[in-house]
Amino acid sequence: MADEREVAVAPARHGGEPSPELLEHLHDPARVLALTDGVFAIIITLLVLEIHVPELTQGHTLTEALAELRPSLVAFVISFILAGMYWVGHRDLFALIRRTDRGLVWLNILYLLPLCLLPFGAGLLGRYDTEPVALRIYGLLLVLIAVMRVVIWLYATNRPHLLWQPPDTRQRRAGLAAALFPGLVYLLAFLLARVAPRLSLAIYGALPVLYFLSITVLRSGRKRNQEYAYFT
Amino acid sequence: MADEREVAVAPARHGGEPSPELLEHLHDPARVLALTDGVFAIIITLLVLEIHVPELTQGHTLTEALAELRPSLVAFVISFILAGMYWVGHRDLFALIRRTDRGLVWLNILYLLPLCLLPFGAGLLGRYDTEPVALRIYGLLLVLIAVMRVVIWLYATNRPHLLWQPPDTRQRRAGLAAALFPGLVYLLAFLLARVAPRLSLAIYGALPVLYFLSITVLRSGRKRNQEYAYFT
Amino acid sequence: MADEREVAVAPARHGGEPSPELLEHLHDPARVLALTDGVFAIIITLLVLEIHVPELTQGHTLTEALAELRPSLVAFVISFILAGMYWVGHRDLFALIRRTDRGLVWLNILYLLPLCLLPFGAGLLGRYDTEPVALRIYGLLLVLIAVMRVVIWLYATNRPHLLWQPPDTRQRRAGLAAALFPGLVYLLAFLLARVAPRLSLAIYGALPVLYFLSITVLRSGRKRNQEYAYFT
Amino acid sequence: MADEREVAVAPARHGGEPSPELLEHLHDPARVLALTDGVFAIIITLLVLEIHVPELTQGHTLTEALAELRPSLVAFVISFILAGMYWVGHRDLFALIRRTDRGLVWLNILYLLPLCLLPFGAGLLGRYDTEPVALRIYGLLLVLIAVMRVVIWLYATNRPHLLWQPPDTRQRRAGLAAALFPGLVYLLAFLLARVAPRLSLAIYGALPVLYFLSITVLRSGRKRNQEYAYFT
Repeated sequence: MADEREVAVAPARHGGEPSPELLEHLHDPARVLALTDGVFAIIITLLVLEIHVPELTQGHTLTEALAELRPSLVAFVISFILAGMYWVGHRDLFALIRRTDRGLVWLNILYLLPLCLLPFGAGLLGRYDTEPVALRIYGLLLVLIAVMRVVIWLYATNRPHLLWQPPDTRQRRAGLAAALFPGLVYLLAFLLARVAPRLSLAIYGALPVLYFLSITVLRSGRKRNQEYAYFT
Repeated sequence: MADEREVAVAPARHGGEPSPELLEHLHDPARVLALTDGVFAIIITLLVLEIHVPELTQGHTLTEALAELRPSLVAFVISFILAGMYWVGHRDLFALIRRTDRGLVWLNILYLLPLCLLPFGAGLLGRYDTEPVALRIYGLLLVLIAVMRVVIWLYATNRPHLLWQPPDTRQRRAGLAAALFPGLVYLLAFLLARVAPRLSLAIYGALPVLYFLSITVLRSGRKRNQEYAYFT
Repeated sequence: MADEREVAVAPARHGGEPSPELLEHLHDPARVLALTDGVFAIIITLLVLEIHVPELTQGHTLTEALAELRPSLVAFVISFILAGMYWVGHRDLFALIRRTDRGLVWLNILYLLPLCLLPFGAGLLGRYDTEPVALRIYGLLLVLIAVMRVVIWLYATNRPHLLWQPPDTRQRRAGLAAALFPGLVYLLAFLLARVAPRLSLAIYGALPVLYFLSITVLRSGRKRNQEYAYFT
Repeated sequence: MADEREVAVAPARHGGEPSPELLEHLHDPARVLALTDGVFAIIITLLVLEIHVPELTQGHTLTEALAELRPSLVAFVISFILAGMYWVGHRDLFALIRRTDRGLVWLNILYLLPLCLLPFGAGLLGRYDTEPVALRIYGLLLVLIAVMRVVIWLYATNRPHLLWQPPDTRQRRAGLAAALFPGLVYLLAFLLARVAPRLSLAIYGALPVLYFLSITVLRSGRKRNQEYAYFT
């Protein structure tokens, strides 16, 4: 795969200047994706590690013991679906990216940081779903993830040489909105956690539903909304 | 690798229309497989995480302590073989798939959901192998996995542009039967769990045996059964 | 990458016969390696999951508490080096393999089964290093792994179409010996566990040392020992 | 991808001599990277596995219970950032490497050994941040990692056939300094642990800050410092 830009930058290769072939290797996103997929695989299965086969104590039936596992199971399913949503979003974004640089590599690592804590946040919310502090921690994690997505989107789309094909202005705005909008809603839920915990919880529950609805709507109307063509 | 179909759809690329090269990247199944293999690697080793070196208490010999680990070990082996079977099936199916779309990506994530719970189900059954509730949970997981396999098979084979080569009608039916048949048997075992727990357990134990027998039979007769040529 | 053999087998492609391109995908070893590397990554780090930061109880210093972690640490290092040895061996073997079939896929899964239990065996030996039952379990695992390596080697080298280049008779024998010899030594240690536990333990400890010595010797004499050219 | 060197070494292929294509496979670094990325994914998420949803006991509020998790959380973040730094360094180094040999494969495994223990070291330091023994263990791990980085750098740059493009003398020295310098600082912190624990702790805390500062400085001055062109 010829790399015209780099060739142009380094026409006469001498001394210690990296060759175009080496430059491609230095900027190859493959390992960024490998690490990210590994981390996502662990995040997706993280809460299942906590669902153990119960040991029955006297006077307990297995059905009762299993009923006590229900909050763990609900937290696992929520965390699984959320991690799935974020993974699909990450895959969509990095499908646009042809090369990485150190900035992008680090932004991606910093994106994984709040993501790793998401199963803990989901588990906390599954166990204490009306406690303002649990609602705020969960909201904070979701806001941080959204912030990192916005930062990565702006960073990558401002550097056309990192992309397979630079998006036009409408597409840039659409991508920004897609990352920013959930962040703002989660910020609202975070701010409401103390004064209106039930409303806050309802927002957290509603957003994944909205996500799947919006996919369905966007897909059926994709011919007209060409700016969403990037999001498969 | 030229992508004639997409080129045909987008002959004049202008404004924000994705290039054929980018379209291939957006539909590349590589990361779907990377995530899936990561999740399978965790599932396969999940129950081994629970087999700890025993600490001897007074009057206990190591042999006695290890004997108490036997159900954990049996559950690990069952779960390992089952996950291996499902992984081989997933590999066979996705070897046919050249491109993914958002629907297929999400169906695959939803397939991983009951799969992640399978080690828990196997552990539960290994510990309480005559309890109807354990038999029903295990059966429910196996039925859900079978349902997702059928849905993915129908989804993919109905979209020839996602495949390397569209299967003919006989092959579609053979693939459907291969995914549907175990599901129906597991449904039966699920329904029998309350009235005939021992029969239910026997069915769960018999199916992996049948699986290996059917592979052997199919392979020896593969020349005649051309519709199974896809399943290596 | 042209696949002459398969083209020869399927010159006239009609009905549901898979195309050469699809056949390559069905036999691609990529996912077998991805799953295996994922499992090895977990095995390599498995015992580290059990080394927790100690909580000090009254009258205990941190140095004393850490001293109690020493057997866990030793078991981790042993298990790490062993898994490293097996991973290098697996990488050497599968570097020869161009295509997989269902038999090889399943043999590889069955190879991973005793491997997953190896950290448990190493942990057990680290904790109870003179108990015959611990020595026997550890030896049994090592023998099973060696058996699976022999079986995979024979299976693959008997099927030249699965290989990049068929080995000649001397190379086949050298590969067989490299897999068989440690297995026989471990079998001896297993059999000695009850009557001479200390000798058995000494054998387990000596083999990794022998492994690194033999690498060094083989590498320096590699020009003459052309049959080991495959083992980098 | 033609491999002239190997072709030159083996012009007349006969008997059991590996073909150039097979030789490339035997030296392909792909699986080394796959294993390493898998191990890094686990290391990065290792401490998050220990942050569990607290169960409230009588008279405890959730806020108090969460406050007790703070040291675990701090240890997770430190360990995450450190593992991120090492992963970026590993990615930079192996982007230069075109082929591996057995020596490099084993050096990489031995590099992963202290790395796997780093989360334990970080957790220990997060919990007992003024205890000399904790400071020494943490320092020892960091020194061992630095030693392995230096060894790998020297090993690879002394074998030009393993590299995409051999670095010149200035680049070799720059790479050596980049691996050696933190090692020496950590050695100092290790030696100071007993006599000046607070200073030792300050050094551990300062180095990541210095790392990010030096990146920023090097990047802005990269045109002049051509020897750092390899480090993206």
